[in-house]
Amino acid sequence: MDHKLLNHFLRFGSLSDEEIAAIDSTMSRKSFLKGTLLLKAGQHSNEAFFVLEGIVRQFYLIDGSEKTSEFFTEGQWVLSNNNLAHDMPSGHYLECSSDCLLLVGNSAKGEDLYSRYPNLGAISRKLMEAVFLEQQSKLEAFVAGSPQKRYLSLLRQKPVLFQQVPLYHIASYIGITPESLSRIRKRIR
Amino acid sequence: MDHKLLNHFLRFGSLSDEEIAAIDSTMSRKSFLKGTLLLKAGQHSNEAFFVLEGIVRQFYLIDGSEKTSEFFTEGQWVLSNNNLAHDMPSGHYLECSSDCLLLVGNSAKGEDLYSRYPNLGAISRKLMEAVFLEQQSKLEAFVAGSPQKRYLSLLRQKPVLFQQVPLYHIASYIGITPESLSRIRKRIR
Repeated sequence: MDHKLLNHFLRFGSLSDEEIAAIDSTMSRKSFLKGTLLLKAGQHSNEAFFVLEGIVRQFYLIDGSEKTSEFFTEGQWVLSNNNLAHDMPSGHYLECSSDCLLLVGNSAKGEDLYSRYPNLGAISRKLMEAVFLEQQSKLEAFVAGSPQKRYLSLLRQKPVLFQQVPLYHIASYIGITPESLSRIRKRIR
Repeated sequence: MDHKLLNHFLRFGSLSDEEIAAIDSTMSRKSFLKGTLLLKAGQHSNEAFFVLEGIVRQFYLIDGSEKTSEFFTEGQWVLSNNNLAHDMPSGHYLECSSDCLLLVGNSAKGEDLYSRYPNLGAISRKLMEAVFLEQQSKLEAFVAGSPQKRYLSLLRQKPVLFQQVPLYHIASYIGITPESLSRIRKRIR
């Protein structure tokens, strides 16, 4: 098992050798070129991704323009309705913002693992709780923070984005125009 | 067990009589008057609430003014960082927007239940996945929807709010001024 995935799981519980082998047998390692679309709006999919290297961007296409809603970076799961509720078509796109190395699994194999190894189910539950909390702080930042605060918090949490992702995608994620983002960046320097 | 809570759990799996009794022994039923603060920003708490009757409002206090970030209604869990990560102080307030009848539990008792009954852990995992998806559609509505769309979607999903909650709280939740909300409502009538 890749040490990044192992370290990730160990945040939520311990794993036996057998459990590690079982997880490994359900996930495969794949490289994707920058610009690859992993998922399109309207598609059904039950794939889940864990980012080993690179950046995956989630966006919506609204009246012809892209609205970036998330960046997933090293050590994060790319979780979305597609892999949890496969009866629903995806509302968003997933794109590799850089060359990416990903672990690819799917939710049906996950469910099978959880029924064979209750400990993995417990780890997955704690992981979902952690993801829920991350998402809640993100909503909090939207509701309660100014664009400048959201910019500073992104700069602190995911500095890698500023080297690899076009600024207009970052502006879109923060919810402002690229011009406003430039002004904020000038003011802070 | 209250039938609303039972129906809620049955969405995610089946329960034995023993499991139902075990859950019941960890939760208590309490009434709260309109205006009661269940949680204040800065407080630590590991309480979790399930709404049997009434409306619980989550809000942030930003420079002296309240920003509403969620309304929890009948049949919903009031989940927040306070009951999942108790080492973190709450960033938000929870207030009863109406007289409320709630089931009150706490996360330590929950963890104990999950270790004794793995099936309850599995149900909790599926519940967290469902909550995560709900939160994702909410973020989607923020990123991708117009205020009018967010208004219509709230009206469809939680009509009870419009009878019980002041419109300026609803405007705050949608992210617009009360005046803009009035304009939208007039246009639609």
